[in-house]
Amino acid sequence: MFKHTRKLQYNAKPDRPDPLMARRLQESLGGQWGEVTGMMSYLSQGWSSTGSEKYKDLLLDTGTEEIAHVEMISTMIARLLEGAPIYAEADAYKSDPALAAVMGGMDPEHAIVHGLTASLNNPNGAAWNAGYATSSGNLVADMRFNVVRESEARLQVSRLYYMTRDEGIRDMLKFLLARETQHQLQFMKAQEELEDKYGVVVPGDMKDIEHTKYSHVLMNFSDGDGSRAFEGQVAKDGEKFTYQENPEAMGGVPTFKPADPHLHNDQG
Amino acid sequence: MFKHTRKLQYNAKPDRPDPLMARRLQESLGGQWGEVTGMMSYLSQGWSSTGSEKYKDLLLDTGTEEIAHVEMISTMIARLLEGAPIYAEADAYKSDPALAAVMGGMDPEHAIVHGLTASLNNPNGAAWNAGYATSSGNLVADMRFNVVRESEARLQVSRLYYMTRDEGIRDMLKFLLARETQHQLQFMKAQEELEDKYGVVVPGDMKDIEHTKYSHVLMNFSDGDGSRAFEGQVAKDGEKFTYQENPEAMGGVPTFKPADPHLHNDQG
Amino acid sequence: MFKHTRKLQYNAKPDRPDPLMARRLQESLGGQWGEVTGMMSYLSQGWSSTGSEKYKDLLLDTGTEEIAHVEMISTMIARLLEGAPIYAEADAYKSDPALAAVMGGMDPEHAIVHGLTASLNNPNGAAWNAGYATSSGNLVADMRFNVVRESEARLQVSRLYYMTRDEGIRDMLKFLLARETQHQLQFMKAQEELEDKYGVVVPGDMKDIEHTKYSHVLMNFSDGDGSRAFEGQVAKDGEKFTYQENPEAMGGVPTFKPADPHLHNDQG
Amino acid sequence: MFKHTRKLQYNAKPDRPDPLMARRLQESLGGQWGEVTGMMSYLSQGWSSTGSEKYKDLLLDTGTEEIAHVEMISTMIARLLEGAPIYAEADAYKSDPALAAVMGGMDPEHAIVHGLTASLNNPNGAAWNAGYATSSGNLVADMRFNVVRESEARLQVSRLYYMTRDEGIRDMLKFLLARETQHQLQFMKAQEELEDKYGVVVPGDMKDIEHTKYSHVLMNFSDGDGSRAFEGQVAKDGEKFTYQENPEAMGGVPTFKPADPHLHNDQG
Amino acid sequence: MFKHTRKLQYNAKPDRPDPLMARRLQESLGGQWGEVTGMMSYLSQGWSSTGSEKYKDLLLDTGTEEIAHVEMISTMIARLLEGAPIYAEADAYKSDPALAAVMGGMDPEHAIVHGLTASLNNPNGAAWNAGYATSSGNLVADMRFNVVRESEARLQVSRLYYMTRDEGIRDMLKFLLARETQHQLQFMKAQEELEDKYGVVVPGDMKDIEHTKYSHVLMNFSDGDGSRAFEGQVAKDGEKFTYQENPEAMGGVPTFKPADPHLHNDQG
Amino acid sequence: MFKHTRKLQYNAKPDRPDPLMARRLQESLGGQWGEVTGMMSYLSQGWSSTGSEKYKDLLLDTGTEEIAHVEMISTMIARLLEGAPIYAEADAYKSDPALAAVMGGMDPEHAIVHGLTASLNNPNGAAWNAGYATSSGNLVADMRFNVVRESEARLQVSRLYYMTRDEGIRDMLKFLLARETQHQLQFMKAQEELEDKYGVVVPGDMKDIEHTKYSHVLMNFSDGDGSRAFEGQVAKDGEKFTYQENPEAMGGVPTFKPADPHLHNDQG
Repeated sequence: MFKHTRKLQYNAKPDRPDPLMARRLQESLGGQWGEVTGMMSYLSQGWSSTGSEKYKDLLLDTGTEEIAHVEMISTMIARLLEGAPIYAEADAYKSDPALAAVMGGMDPEHAIVHGLTASLNNPNGAAWNAGYATSSGNLVADMRFNVVRESEARLQVSRLYYMTRDEGIRDMLKFLLARETQHQLQFMKAQEELEDKYGVVVPGDMKDIEHTKYSHVLMNFSDGDGSRAFEGQVAKDGEKFTYQENPEAMGGVPTFKPADPHLHNDQG
Repeated sequence: MFKHTRKLQYNAKPDRPDPLMARRLQESLGGQWGEVTGMMSYLSQGWSSTGSEKYKDLLLDTGTEEIAHVEMISTMIARLLEGAPIYAEADAYKSDPALAAVMGGMDPEHAIVHGLTASLNNPNGAAWNAGYATSSGNLVADMRFNVVRESEARLQVSRLYYMTRDEGIRDMLKFLLARETQHQLQFMKAQEELEDKYGVVVPGDMKDIEHTKYSHVLMNFSDGDGSRAFEGQVAKDGEKFTYQENPEAMGGVPTFKPADPHLHNDQG
Repeated sequence: MFKHTRKLQYNAKPDRPDPLMARRLQESLGGQWGEVTGMMSYLSQGWSSTGSEKYKDLLLDTGTEEIAHVEMISTMIARLLEGAPIYAEADAYKSDPALAAVMGGMDPEHAIVHGLTASLNNPNGAAWNAGYATSSGNLVADMRFNVVRESEARLQVSRLYYMTRDEGIRDMLKFLLARETQHQLQFMKAQEELEDKYGVVVPGDMKDIEHTKYSHVLMNFSDGDGSRAFEGQVAKDGEKFTYQENPEAMGGVPTFKPADPHLHNDQG
Repeated sequence: MFKHTRKLQYNAKPDRPDPLMARRLQESLGGQWGEVTGMMSYLSQGWSSTGSEKYKDLLLDTGTEEIAHVEMISTMIARLLEGAPIYAEADAYKSDPALAAVMGGMDPEHAIVHGLTASLNNPNGAAWNAGYATSSGNLVADMRFNVVRESEARLQVSRLYYMTRDEGIRDMLKFLLARETQHQLQFMKAQEELEDKYGVVVPGDMKDIEHTKYSHVLMNFSDGDGSRAFEGQVAKDGEKFTYQENPEAMGGVPTFKPADPHLHNDQG
Repeated sequence: MFKHTRKLQYNAKPDRPDPLMARRLQESLGGQWGEVTGMMSYLSQGWSSTGSEKYKDLLLDTGTEEIAHVEMISTMIARLLEGAPIYAEADAYKSDPALAAVMGGMDPEHAIVHGLTASLNNPNGAAWNAGYATSSGNLVADMRFNVVRESEARLQVSRLYYMTRDEGIRDMLKFLLARETQHQLQFMKAQEELEDKYGVVVPGDMKDIEHTKYSHVLMNFSDGDGSRAFEGQVAKDGEKFTYQENPEAMGGVPTFKPADPHLHNDQG
Repeated sequence: MFKHTRKLQYNAKPDRPDPLMARRLQESLGGQWGEVTGMMSYLSQGWSSTGSEKYKDLLLDTGTEEIAHVEMISTMIARLLEGAPIYAEADAYKSDPALAAVMGGMDPEHAIVHGLTASLNNPNGAAWNAGYATSSGNLVADMRFNVVRESEARLQVSRLYYMTRDEGIRDMLKFLLARETQHQLQFMKAQEELEDKYGVVVPGDMKDIEHTKYSHVLMNFSDGDGSRAFEGQVAKDGEKFTYQENPEAMGGVPTFKPADPHLHNDQG
């Protein structure tokens, strides 16, 4: 169960409105790697955890924090949209090209649909969907996913940082950068502990089942030399990579029985 | 540019048809972490690579192999669907409950839409979409994503393995397990090299910008003790985690200017 | 069954082309609350109605009118796109910034995909989908949905109204505003009749089953005071709201059996 | 900012596992009208509120409660999936038709993707998406939406109630039914207050602008008599409905200028 | 503008309920090639037509008919769902495997979401979306699309035909088969007329611009011989196909400038 | 199985960067009719083919070529994005309106998400999804689909051609135009051969089953005269079209049994 305080976790106050930056920040809210993806993935993983209480709690703590990040970015976006140009009076694209560019570059749905407040979309208006989130029950895989979530998110925040000189926005982004550093590092630590326990290749207990003959072979399918560069190196599981210049097609030319005529498939 | 041989990379021949297993295998084809996600992510990353030729080639070799995996699984699914029950004659759910269960558990679109061949969907019929794939230009983040892709995919193949006793299907899955071992290990190796070069926190050059005061703090937002367990441990970047029992809400209660009346928002 | 006349229900003729306004009007066509949502929801509800012929007919009348609204807006958009700048000659973003802003702000798919005619998308190019529509069989719930559809749609039309000074566009919007007034009012009237019959809480016959102890309690989960303001007020079903300052977590800490090891979940 | 307790808001403990019921409950979690839609809509509306603190707090209190409902249903689903049949040993659809039916009726992704825990999807595996949620800035419209959300959700819970005899599941559903009663009633109350302030037709201040001639006319587009039944009745804004048996097509037959030849459109 | 009669275009009355067939018929309603795709594509093309009144009218006549087909199938589905098993009493998957199979194979949302009436989804519950429809302004391309729509739709209806022995369902399918014959033939006829006018390769006036050297070459990218079989044959534009056994990669190895460091891309 | 060469099939080198053109070209990559749709459709059709080796090979050859087209366009887009304006320094929309227009018209995700390289989306940022692709098992229908894919794609490339004067982009587009000519023609040829074998109406063997009375009737549902224009003409199957001015509604007014009360549907 959850409780809410009206206070934000950190400042979310721009120096001045900027509807183009409002649009860009939607990436960190409703984009593939935005805060909603973090929030929904970590909470789901925590709620679904059938194992260690320690990791379950780490996930729920971080998921709970991410709700606060969605809150901060939503607040920031609404403030960046204050007074954004929407009127025909402006008739911007005829007489005032700079204003016109703002109107052209804004997300038109910010005004029409949301009354100049945040959406749950990315900057191109694609609605957030749960196909971005992950919860598999296997914590090694999912901790790795969480490190990626924080890596791609921090990368995007870093790019956003250079797209504005507004010190208020930058202040919030500096906080998010720091938290994404922490989250990357904590999930890596959990990942390492879990790898120690379950093995480095996920999942860890299928080694005796797989066709091991093919499990350390760099297969070359091109006229490039890059894959060969890893030949002889030691993989994280302690074995060495070998290299196959011309991997054979071992499966033969597939044939099928003719389909039932009532399917109206091609009958050859 | 690409060339194709009609021969499959490996065997994709079940001992006997099984339309329920055909449906389940769609996860490895068109699911969030299926082979199409691998193929489209690695190829995109390779084509977009503006850096090292070595990693570009590794990505394109692996992406090219994944096309062959999509081909193998498509072939396997079509074979598993041979002779699947579709006729009213069966009228299965009245007289033959076992057959009825097969008809109920099949993907009805396999017959109606695809003439008993594979789709590009997951087992619930959700169409593959590019929101599953990733290509960011930052190879540390993307190599991490690739390790996750191979981890979640191998996890799913491992679960699928126990869902059948068909030795033909298992033979193919054993091959996929092995290749996903290799791909996990090779992308980890590339990830490590790139972390050595660019730093372990992605992206590596924002440390002087972020609010470092918050970048190694485990924040507790619950009555659970799990996060505290990491206190004092050394993070992968060499610094130690601290722990904050009661993180403060530092951002104040947000206020907004009343919206322009022509937006018809609530005016308070 | 349906019949069509080539004549539009009302005027859809702008004074002059305006490709930015064409893009914005896509919200009223293919957006979440646009006319396609109205048309498909009301028709589906009507076709699915297993009850009163009166409401079925009201729904089908209104759904049939909405097809004509989609037709009018499609026509308007095509006319607004007549002569829109698409040529490289313009090379607008270098020499003519006002024109550049138009080109930047247009929906590029209007030209590339649709030959400067309407799409079935919203202004951000998201394709209309049936997840926007509703047909539940329960007419109280669905009439309420229909009132919302007309409310959000009229709100958007109101915002669009101030985004143009084109008297031709405004003429059409004034007609749509009026029809959305009518549709709000008629669906409210139907809703009231149905509430009288089936009860104000949907669905109306579960009162003896629910845990009534919790059915009139304003629960506070924050440090805000807003919810308390409703304390003691009379709800629409005649009972009074009570207020709970600190709602208890009554469900205990959940525990799970360890997952089957073959699932490769975390085992704790 | 948010805090979490490991304790659930209410019981979420089935008497025994039931993977088919687990699948059905996904509707209340990730479906169009499920708890995630409530949670994301109310939180977004609260965070975007530029008006009264009272309604903002009501929205955030309810949104915060909904997170706890998602948590409860996720927990319930994971428990219902404990020990679900996944093994080939069962080979269910050949020898044990009852077991086969369970396997056929389960969501195969529950096992393959989520390790027998909850997803963020509906029972057909469609991923939750933000196109289900609404936040417009206009609180009359949005409170109406919220009443609908609680109406459709309670309707679905009512239907789910009769699909099981498990007293543990029913206990949780009885609690959800009660809370959805409360939420319907509280949002209706807020809606009424806001209608008193802003007018009953949303938005309230466009009356002088719209073509009022068409704003209280029941238009008949069919050979049905249902719409006529409302003729002469008093609408909620105090005016009477009139009825038009044969609404005229007032807009003429639309014509277009021939498209620019470089668009390769049909030239007539 | 449109008018509606309560009478269906043709019979839609099954001999008896069959919830599995109800699910399958959703393909013809809300699937990729279902009637909604026809209806929305033909109406959009008609409304967007900037050319010949003749084709515009053909499109609008057929689009108007398709609304009636959606109506018929919606009606059929609701009737097939009458009395479908939804109760726990059945507890079907324990005691009555045949009934269990029905419950397992039904679309659970038919009951939970739609009260046993039709949805706007396909049999796997994927919501219809406008990405299935097409309206390009170019009538040759779009008439071809329409022929495909009618071809894939008729194929699916043909497969559905053999999945039931219910004479009521079959009666409706026989009517749909006939109309899809007519629609294929009429759109082919229109396509031919338009090809005569605009040329057989769409669009018809780019021949002098394209690199004609590559426009009649069968390029072989495999070890298969199939493409060669067309060598020397006369294409529909009167020219002969040539065959290239080993197409050359003419574009060189692409290189990029290193990305701006602030993007944090790999720098090589 | 596939092999890759680092060399592109053809030149993909613009004369100079142009981020607006980069955005537009996404249509040919990840749009409904873009190269990914071609690649995934032809490969799927080829892998699913249960009939003639000749068509299977033609499909796989063309599908393999399309991967190379995706590669070329991805390369072109990354090059067009080199040096695109992303910095706040520009602060473009205030001081330099021409630059502002570029920034407003760019896809913001090109910079934020992809580090100025290509995405798998269309120009409006909608992710490619498998609902655009088709593979039915029936090669007549699918060859027709393929002709449409190449027609709509070539139409879009033709429109894109006039949107730039960059000779490097045009060079690549001229090559694509040529290949799309070839692919249209080769699929038409295959279609004709298959029509000769299986009949012109798809599928070819349902003629004796359908209600033939309705299979050559142009039905008029409007006050337009266009459909009548085809009266008496000979359809491609050799029969003549007849015309019905006022098609009768033959299906009667549908009635339903009242729904089970536990569904809480309207009871009339």
